[in-house]
Amino acid sequence: MSEPYADSGRESLAGRAAALDAADELGKVRARFVLDDTVYLDGNSLGALPRSVPGRIEDVVRRQWGSLRIRSWDESGWWTAPERIGDRIAPLVGAAPGQIVVGDSTSVNVFKAVVGAVRLAGGGEGAGGGGARGEGRDEILVDATTFPTDGYIAASAARLTGCTLRPVAPDEVPDALSGRTAAVLLNHVDYRTGRLHDLPALTAAIRAAGAVSVWDLCHSAGALPVGLDEHGVDLAVGCTYKYLNGGPGSPAYLYVRRDHQSRFDSPLPGWNSHAEPFGMTADHVPADGALRGRVGTPDILSMLALEAALEVWDDVSIEVVRTKSLALTDFFLECVAAYVPGGAVESVTPAAHAERGSQVALRCADAGGVMSRLIERGVVGDFREPDILRFGFTPLYVGFGEVERAAGVLGGLF
Amino acid sequence: MSEPYADSGRESLAGRAAALDAADELGKVRARFVLDDTVYLDGNSLGALPRSVPGRIEDVVRRQWGSLRIRSWDESGWWTAPERIGDRIAPLVGAAPGQIVVGDSTSVNVFKAVVGAVRLAGGGEGAGGGGARGEGRDEILVDATTFPTDGYIAASAARLTGCTLRPVAPDEVPDALSGRTAAVLLNHVDYRTGRLHDLPALTAAIRAAGAVSVWDLCHSAGALPVGLDEHGVDLAVGCTYKYLNGGPGSPAYLYVRRDHQSRFDSPLPGWNSHAEPFGMTADHVPADGALRGRVGTPDILSMLALEAALEVWDDVSIEVVRTKSLALTDFFLECVAAYVPGGAVESVTPAAHAERGSQVALRCADAGGVMSRLIERGVVGDFREPDILRFGFTPLYVGFGEVERAAGVLGGLF
Repeated sequence: MSEPYADSGRESLAGRAAALDAADELGKVRARFVLDDTVYLDGNSLGALPRSVPGRIEDVVRRQWGSLRIRSWDESGWWTAPERIGDRIAPLVGAAPGQIVVGDSTSVNVFKAVVGAVRLAGGGEGAGGGGARGEGRDEILVDATTFPTDGYIAASAARLTGCTLRPVAPDEVPDALSGRTAAVLLNHVDYRTGRLHDLPALTAAIRAAGAVSVWDLCHSAGALPVGLDEHGVDLAVGCTYKYLNGGPGSPAYLYVRRDHQSRFDSPLPGWNSHAEPFGMTADHVPADGALRGRVGTPDILSMLALEAALEVWDDVSIEVVRTKSLALTDFFLECVAAYVPGGAVESVTPAAHAERGSQVALRCADAGGVMSRLIERGVVGDFREPDILRFGFTPLYVGFGEVERAAGVLGGLF
Repeated sequence: MSEPYADSGRESLAGRAAALDAADELGKVRARFVLDDTVYLDGNSLGALPRSVPGRIEDVVRRQWGSLRIRSWDESGWWTAPERIGDRIAPLVGAAPGQIVVGDSTSVNVFKAVVGAVRLAGGGEGAGGGGARGEGRDEILVDATTFPTDGYIAASAARLTGCTLRPVAPDEVPDALSGRTAAVLLNHVDYRTGRLHDLPALTAAIRAAGAVSVWDLCHSAGALPVGLDEHGVDLAVGCTYKYLNGGPGSPAYLYVRRDHQSRFDSPLPGWNSHAEPFGMTADHVPADGALRGRVGTPDILSMLALEAALEVWDDVSIEVVRTKSLALTDFFLECVAAYVPGGAVESVTPAAHAERGSQVALRCADAGGVMSRLIERGVVGDFREPDILRFGFTPLYVGFGEVERAAGVLGGLF
């Protein structure tokens, strides 16, 4: 084992880290989070706690629920929270208001989006929906390297709509598109490698083929500009507990492009998506706009924690976040190269900025054991099967000094 | 307008209320809730705040999320919360452990249950699932008087599985069952009238017809014994924010009878239902047991608020709750008869105990206006279209004196 603090390159990298931190436009934002001496590089799994959350949740529990009780559905704005919070997320992903609703898990939103996409494309439906199998669009393409739940849910959507599911590497989607393609489900950033896929070009190719795009933004929203409206994305989903810091299992969201809303036909048309939810009518008449992505009663505690968490973004530009994110991952790779003995780790995250999200994934022997030792030493990332050390960089609260320290601790393990 | 306090029958009813409260075995439980001078008869919409919740949620937010962060998935028991809390609900609905998972909204659970029921019955599936339309079981029966979301979601499940949806009054289900029936979705207690349906007999009839039963327990769980295991119910769902006091939009639950678990085939097979969720494999291998009803990442804040809320049940028997519930609704009807001028209101809730849940619904002219005036005077129920005053009686915290007072205030409005 080498001694990391004895490394000759250490002083200059530490000095550069200090200079970068001093010049960091987002340095002031760090104080909005509850942090400690840990170098927390796992914000791509669970974001740190924003200081705005605990007091808000106490008010929601004690006053809104405890004292106002049922009146809070109106008086505390509970009923309209899904679309109100959707509008707060919207600018972070490049969406105009009225296109995002918050609620349910990412998996449930993937289901709404993929079935909805097949229906928008006029495809699938099998026996149940009036379509005819074998005619028209009956294929769903899914990112072959997807986070598993997207693939599982897409398979279920395919089965229920009478479509075939075909896993394809994102780069190969343009060649795989055909007149049979109904929907394409892709990840903006790969959860394992941190690869950023070319959303504008792939979305354009999908549209040109007459198919409907569904993007999973779990690993990009809050870390880099997405440009949903600008790039003509049809449908999108994302979680809110990673770079949006909404808390454990905070509700996910669904984006339905304005042009599609009047034809969006949800497979989960719960009473909250009804044009008149309290009319209690036997027939479902879908609400206008993004509201038709709602399903049942929203989980208010988790949802209002998210709303409070989003306040950290009030004066933050996602473009500045992206600039810092790339600087952080560049600097981490540089420090790893300087501190970790050659050959001990290998980056599987693309070097090109245009292909990199806000994480670095290092392939490493005994990655599970190495990550345990890192965590013992105060550097928290995570391990992904079979051999990946995964480090996420949340520009709102991670500093360059921490990045240098993390690489030093890692180098000390070999 | 009559003067309620001048009513000659008042003193004796008030005296009886005081005696009933003094003898109330559940009187001690009231102190476990945050209450005030309001007579809160809307616990069948949103249960009152248990005192065990605020401190727990503060710990979950500040320590578990804020300090332990990602470690809490293991160290704070986040990951296993859905089945752990399911096992806490189980005795309240007559289920042995290992058959209930908590998570998602009621609507989403209705979807899992109805599609799962059709598959358990070997029916439906249309083009997508290998079944053949027109052969075998292709009909779903749904309670014609259901809370709307169940009907909307059942319609979607029917469409996606190639089945026909047929609304039937619960009493007429036995006659409507046939060799075509795949699944039957019923409410244990009607949300509007408070009618309690005959779960044992209807479940037996459904089973005898070779179909699969799905019961919605939203308006019965926590108010009366359900007996899921005893009566052979196949699948059940319910919310937790009414008589279980879990908080606004707290997660719902799904019961899958043990005999069916190995064949339960969820239409929402998210990564949390995988046998090895962190294996990150491309193929979905369902977990054993109730876990296969899980979908995505659980909403921890809402879920752990529910867990704390369930502590009020630690020494409470559901049979005692039922006895008090019937005494409360009987006494309310008696007070209404005494205090409200004849013909001003008419109960649409059955008089027979065997047919009554834990609410009383009164038909009344200008019911919306009457309810507003009641609320102004400190008696909180709710209004349901078109002409119903709805009063819920939560035996854990509603007393007989409050019931008498509520009827008096109501009488004073006419």
